[in-house]
This record gives sequence, C-alpha cells and structure tokens, in this order.
Amino acid sequence: MASTLRHSSRLGIRTARFVLPRGRNAYATVAPFFSNEPIQPSVMTPIPGPVSRKAIEELDSVFDTRSLNMICDYKKSVGNYLVDMDGNVSLPIPGNTIASIPVGYNNPRLIAAMSSKEAVDALVNRPALGGFPPAYWASLLKTGILAVAPKGLDQVFTAMAGSDAIETSYKAAFIYRRRIERGEGVDFTPQEIESVMKNQAPGSPELTIMSFKKAFHGRLFGSLSTTRSKPVHKLDIPSFDWPQASFPRLEYPLEDNIEANKKEEERCLAEVEDRICSWPIAAVVVEPIQSEGGDNHASPAFFQGLRDLTKKKGVLLIVDEVQTGVGATGKFWAHEHWNLESPPDMVTFSKKAQTAGYYFGNPLLRPNLPYRQFNTWMGDPVRAILFRAIIQEIAKHDLIKNTAETGDYLYRELEKLASSFPERVQNLRGKDRGTFIAFDTPERDALLKKMKTFGVNIGGSGETAVRLRPMLVFQKHHG
Amino acid sequence: MASTLRHSSRLGIRTARFVLPRGRNAYATVAPFFSNEPIQPSVMTPIPGPVSRKAIEELDSVFDTRSLNMICDYKKSVGNYLVDMDGNVSLPIPGNTIASIPVGYNNPRLIAAMSSKEAVDALVNRPALGGFPPAYWASLLKTGILAVAPKGLDQVFTAMAGSDAIETSYKAAFIYRRRIERGEGVDFTPQEIESVMKNQAPGSPELTIMSFKKAFHGRLFGSLSTTRSKPVHKLDIPSFDWPQASFPRLEYPLEDNIEANKKEEERCLAEVEDRICSWPIAAVVVEPIQSEGGDNHASPAFFQGLRDLTKKKGVLLIVDEVQTGVGATGKFWAHEHWNLESPPDMVTFSKKAQTAGYYFGNPLLRPNLPYRQFNTWMGDPVRAILFRAIIQEIAKHDLIKNTAETGDYLYRELEKLASSFPERVQNLRGKDRGTFIAFDTPERDALLKKMKTFGVNIGGSGETAVRLRPMLVFQKHHG
Repeated sequence: MASTLRHSSRLGIRTARFVLPRGRNAYATVAPFFSNEPIQPSVMTPIPGPVSRKAIEELDSVFDTRSLNMICDYKKSVGNYLVDMDGNVSLPIPGNTIASIPVGYNNPRLIAAMSSKEAVDALVNRPALGGFPPAYWASLLKTGILAVAPKGLDQVFTAMAGSDAIETSYKAAFIYRRRIERGEGVDFTPQEIESVMKNQAPGSPELTIMSFKKAFHGRLFGSLSTTRSKPVHKLDIPSFDWPQASFPRLEYPLEDNIEANKKEEERCLAEVEDRICSWPIAAVVVEPIQSEGGDNHASPAFFQGLRDLTKKKGVLLIVDEVQTGVGATGKFWAHEHWNLESPPDMVTFSKKAQTAGYYFGNPLLRPNLPYRQFNTWMGDPVRAILFRAIIQEIAKHDLIKNTAETGDYLYRELEKLASSFPERVQNLRGKDRGTFIAFDTPERDALLKKMKTFGVNIGGSGETAVRLRPMLVFQKHHG
Repeated sequence: MASTLRHSSRLGIRTARFVLPRGRNAYATVAPFFSNEPIQPSVMTPIPGPVSRKAIEELDSVFDTRSLNMICDYKKSVGNYLVDMDGNVSLPIPGNTIASIPVGYNNPRLIAAMSSKEAVDALVNRPALGGFPPAYWASLLKTGILAVAPKGLDQVFTAMAGSDAIETSYKAAFIYRRRIERGEGVDFTPQEIESVMKNQAPGSPELTIMSFKKAFHGRLFGSLSTTRSKPVHKLDIPSFDWPQASFPRLEYPLEDNIEANKKEEERCLAEVEDRICSWPIAAVVVEPIQSEGGDNHASPAFFQGLRDLTKKKGVLLIVDEVQTGVGATGKFWAHEHWNLESPPDMVTFSKKAQTAGYYFGNPLLRPNLPYRQFNTWMGDPVRAILFRAIIQEIAKHDLIKNTAETGDYLYRELEKLASSFPERVQNLRGKDRGTFIAFDTPERDALLKKMKTFGVNIGGSGETAVRLRPMLVFQKHHG
C-alpha cells in the first residue's frame, strides 16, 4: 500500500512489490497464507462497472444504495482480495465491511466451521439463550469468546452487534450504580416502581454515561448519545443530555512533542475529573483509539490516569473495543498496550469477532434479579462458533504477531514517505499499534477515490485521516 | 393443550388426543407435518433433571442462568417437540425462544437452506450491506423479505433483532418529521450542527414517540422508553420523557360487552388525540396485540381510528409486528385483520422472521442524505436466506391456514372449558386471531409450573395471562 501510494500516479495499477527497491524476493521467506490469492489487484472497468451499475439500480428500487461502495462477488473473493460484479479485483484496506473481516475471504477454516452440523443446528434451531440455551453453550463460550477474554474479566453478556453490546454495557452500569447507591438487598421503593412506568425519576434515574469528543460508540439512542464523531450521525435524533470531555489531540511526531502532549493529556484528564464532580456519571466509555473520529490516539499514561481516576471516584470504566479488538493493534485487545494495574470494568466487542457483547469480571455487574438484562436472543450461537474458528485461525498462523510485524513494516515505509512528502503525509500515527495506522492528507477524499481506481480500497476516518485497517492476514507483500 | 389442561391433574402425562371425546381418529384426515415427531410429551425426571442441573451450574459460572427455563438438546428435537438434556420431551407453546421458532425444530427445508453454499458464503464472507452488498442481495430481498411485505410497503431497512428494528424505525420517523418541518431541500442550520454535538436542541430535537401503556417494544434506550410492560424491564435505566396513552382494556366475552368496549376504545383514542395535541410526537407505535403486556386486544375499529387520527394530525404510525408477525394470528401480518384504508407508515418484524427490520412505503422515509441511517452490518443475509426458506415452507404447507384452523379449534375447546370452569378460564381472547390466544387464570404461575411437569411448556404474559404461541406447524392433534 505504501509503495502503491508512492507510485500509483506513475505506474497505474502495477502493484507495490514490483516497484519497491527490494523487489519481490524480499518477501520470499514469508509464505502467503492463501496460496490461491491473486498476485495483485486488477481493475478493468470503472468502479462501478456496467454490470455493477445495473445491479445497483435494481437494488436501489428496494434498498438505499447511496452509501454503497462496491457490489461484491464474495464467492470469487479470496484472502485479502475482493472481487466485484464486473470482475475487478481490489485490495480493501479495510474498505470492505468496515474492518470486520479478520482472516480473509473464503478462509477454509471458516468454511469448514460454517458447513458443520453444529453451525446448521445453531441456525435452524436458533435458541433463545437466556431461557432455552443449548447443551453446548457453556463449552462454546469457554472454548471461544471466553478463551480470549481480557485479563481480569471472566464473564460475558452476549449481544448481536456493536450498538447493543455497548447499550447493554451501559444498562449494566446503571443497574450497578443504583445497586451500590441503594445498598445490597434493599428493595425498589413504591415511588421507584410507580415513577419508572412514566419514564420519570426516581425509578428512571437522571444518571449519565460520559464519553469523549469525537468518540463513536454506535447509532441507537443510548449509544448515539455518547457518539460525538460527526453531526450527520446525530442530526434530528433526540438524545440524552449526557456529558463529554475532550480526548487528547496529540502533536506528531510524538518524540518531538513529549512535553506538550503530556500537558494535553493532563488537561483532558482534568476535564474528566471536572465532569465526574459535576454530573451523576455511572460510567465513562472510551475507545483505545478513536476510530471513526479520525484515528485519535492517546498514551498508555492517559489511560492509566483514566483508570485510576474512575476507580477513585467510583465510576465504571467501559473500554469499547468494537473496532480495536481482535488483533488489529498487534495485541488481541488494544487495551493490553496500557499495562493497567486493575482491568477495565467492561470491555465491548463486535466487528472482527463476528459476534458481539461485553466482558466483565465483577459479579455485582450481574443485576440482582433475572430478566433485568434480558432479551429474546441474547446473542447468536452460530457467530460464537464462527468466532471460535477465527480464534483458532489466529492462533494457528500467529496472526497477531503477523499484524504487529506487518504494521511495523508499513509504519516504517510511511515514515519514509512522510519524510519525503511532509505535506502529503501528516501526523503519521499508530507506531507499535499493529496495522492500526493513519495519517492526515490534504484532499483526502480525492486520494481515496483515485486509489480505488487502482484497486486499492482504503477508508477515511474523521475529516482528514487516511486509515489503514487491513485484515490480520495482510502480509508485507500486500503492502 | 386444551384437553391436557382439562385432564392433566387426573391423567398425568397422557396427552390430549387420547382423552378427547372424539378420539384420535378425529384427526386422521390431517396429515402431520413431521412424520418423525414424537407422539406425545414424555417427562422422566424433574425439570431440570440431574444432567441439566449439572450443566446449568457449569454455565452459570460464566453466564447468567437465572432466567433459564430449560437447557436443550436441539439436535434431538423434532417439529413441535423439544428435548432437554435429560431426555425429557416437551411440547413448548411457545416456551422455547419466545415464539421465535416458526416451522418446527430441525425442519428439513431449513436444514437444506442453511447447509447450502449460499448460506456458508453469507456467514464466512459476511458483507457490510450498506457499503459492500453482495451480488445476490437485491434478488434475495425480492424473493424473501419483500415477497411478504405488507400491502403498500415496498421498501425495507434491514436490522438484526427486534430492538434495533424498532429503534431504526424511530430514527426514520424523527428524520422524516424534521424533513417535513424544515422543508424539502433546506439545509441544516449552523445552530443545529453545533448544538447536536452537545446533544442539545435544535440539532437534537425535543421530539417524542408515543406508545401505549402495557406496550413492549424492546429494551435498548429508545425502545425501552416506549416499553411500558413491567417495572423490572425499566428500573434504574434512564429514559426519554416520552408520552403514553391508555390501550383499551376490553371486557369479555366481547359479544356481551359491545357498548362498553366501544366506549373504552373511544376513550383511548381521545387520549391519543390529547397527547398528539400536547406533545411533539413524531410517531405513534403500537402492537396489534400487546404481547408481553398481557395479550391485550383491540378491535379493527380502534386501529382504523388510530390510523385516521395519526394521518389527520401528520403523525406517523409504526405497527410493531415483532411478535405478532409471520402467521401466528392466522394472517401473515396481524394488521391485515384491520382492513385499513391506508397502510401503516412502517411495520417492524423479527422473531419468527429470524431476521429483522422495518418495511416502509413512502420514499421520503429514506433520509435526504446517505449515512444518516447506517451501521456496519445493516442486517444479516444468512437470516434473510433463512426467512426466505420459512416463507417457502409456509406457502408449501399453507401454514397460515393451518394456524387459523388450529386456532379456531383451540379457541372453541377453551370456550367450552371457560363455560365449565368460569373461574379458571377468564377473559378468553384471541377469537379469529389464529393461535394467538390467551386467558387469565388465578394462580397462573403455579399452573404453568405444573403444566411443565407434564411436558407442556406454556408461557405467561402480563400478570395473570396464560398465552398460547405455538409454532405454525402446530396441528389439532397437538392440542
């Protein structure tokens, strides 16, 4: 990718490896994960081409297609390469599925897992996991979702997607907060029971969740009230009057701005403390790297400070790993980079996990009564089976290590570019964070559009960032 | 079921058909849908039995089991019959999966659909439907979800579960309302763009959704603000200050209370009108039959009045068919019973559909810009494939007609019981509504518990109702 970026205007669709100084042989020692992958993108028509255009028109008559990027032929796609309906072969980084395909299109292990009798049973006889769990549910959780649980968190509440994972974690935080305030074993008061049916306090309390400016936590009503990324996500939708604090805006390169960045992070932590003192906050929610908001990073010291502060003030800390989780930062969970003394109270997951939910460790985060945190499906066993296969694939090929190494390589290449073209590659960030790398560039959208015509489908975040989010099977020779 | 109810205390686990006056031969003309179904429930241990108890203990160490009804061996379950880990065979009506299994456990057509290459592809290469839809998405929608779209509604927004189906329909209503208020083509103001990032008006407007007392529409923050079923669903969770109106409380039998019920419905409609005049209401949401709130019915005249009133006042009408949809009332959609002159603005679906979303017909319900109603997955193609197979199975065996006929039969039998035991079977309701039948009974929970020991797993709704929700493949000989 880095070299495509450098040479694309000169070389058209020829791919990186042919023009890199070291040539293809430099990668000969790294075996590709997919022996049947195309060797390079190939674009034969405009995107969308004629076949796709006709299909888009047909789809648009029943389904909104204005956010459509590409209409895909997944059956023909392999590994890192995505094929569209006109036969164009693209390399999405992440492009497709918003960084949610972890181990490659048509990964054989995943095909085997989803063709199994176990998967078909989970689909055809879909259980309501709260009331009628299947016999295999405990062992599936233990060998899958919980086998990769963050340190200190040994329980899970399963959900369907990022938004409800986040919202159920908020509900757990509110129920917990009132439990502590009320005192263990104390019943609801008649006033609470009566007022809650009118959506009023004290039964429906005036508690809040604090989030950060530029944060993205989802688009349903509770999660959207903590999302602060772009107006278009929020306009015209009623929301809760919940507080926000500034997220650090670091200066790059980090090594030249140590003092200023330290001050910026202290300023933000002071804002958090101010909000906690001024608002009834049940939990603070934070992304390890603000993903939709522009790939905004903060140091481990900032997050350690946030953990210490929330713990001291009796406020829960929810780490939203929906986009950062499952390996993309070179560790399984991005918050492992922080070396916290005590774990977050809850960690949410979705996207690359293909299933969703939140981890927790404190048994008091199970509500005092059943049916308070409950719904019909309570998650999805077939996706839990899929996640288990993904975990096995990651372990088998050491894909976290691959991502860390590929990320280091990409970062170094981009660093060279930044040094040669400082106006085109600004604020390069994501060092030691696997392939979770971004930079700012003027005329970002034009660049992304141009790259797409070369078969390289990169995404943006925030207003000016180009963000990399390749799969975990992205290797140096794709770079 | 009716006869089991009558005879259970006398005959233990012997099933209905052996004791009904007409005997088994009365059903000989109706071929069973599953030739390999057990002929009756059989319960050999307490439920949960020793194997299940051990499994529950194991599961509880990582997952809340306090709402657990039964731990199931789905692979051994067939048709209407559910097998638990101790080998007990139960007849869930609905028991399992909260009325969400439509055409029987291990239905062969569904097994074929979920074993297909198409399904495996949809799982392994899960597309982000908004940005990167698969080539087959348009035809899958047209031959599946949209082939059963309610009259007048030819568009769909797909979702994951009932709660996000409802919440995205609310978002569509708010965006639509502001579009009409703002005027076509008028941009957001700088004040809107600035205030919305602080969760404040005018960008985040003070609009509301009106729901009915005793309604259930889900458990996330927006949907929970319209749910009014039980305090335990809502306590300690912040909610929007949104209005409610009374839902009719009809007197039974209907034919003896015509005048009183007419007045009651008029009273409720007057309340709705009052709310619309006093609150900024973007939409009214209503269930055709209040399902969690106690199986509360209203007449077609009430719903016609509600449609007329909302239309006159420029308020959208959302019909929540998450529980009533897909055949259970003897029509595909329950609101077809009302013969409306103009269709609802949106109709939500989930549960028996196995997939979720909302239908709509008005093109202005597509937001004026892309990415306003958007998320990573935007639904789930494998569930859309599953729903298509369910639709085919319903058509092939005329299961809507079966449900209407079975429902008539069950209703008549329960009517006889009500006449013999008026104190045990009160307020029988659901005539001409397929198998969506309920009655009130004193000591309801004790009855349900006792039935479970006979292998008949019935559910309750509200505080006193016993509700039937059998599958669409439930036949007279199961009754």
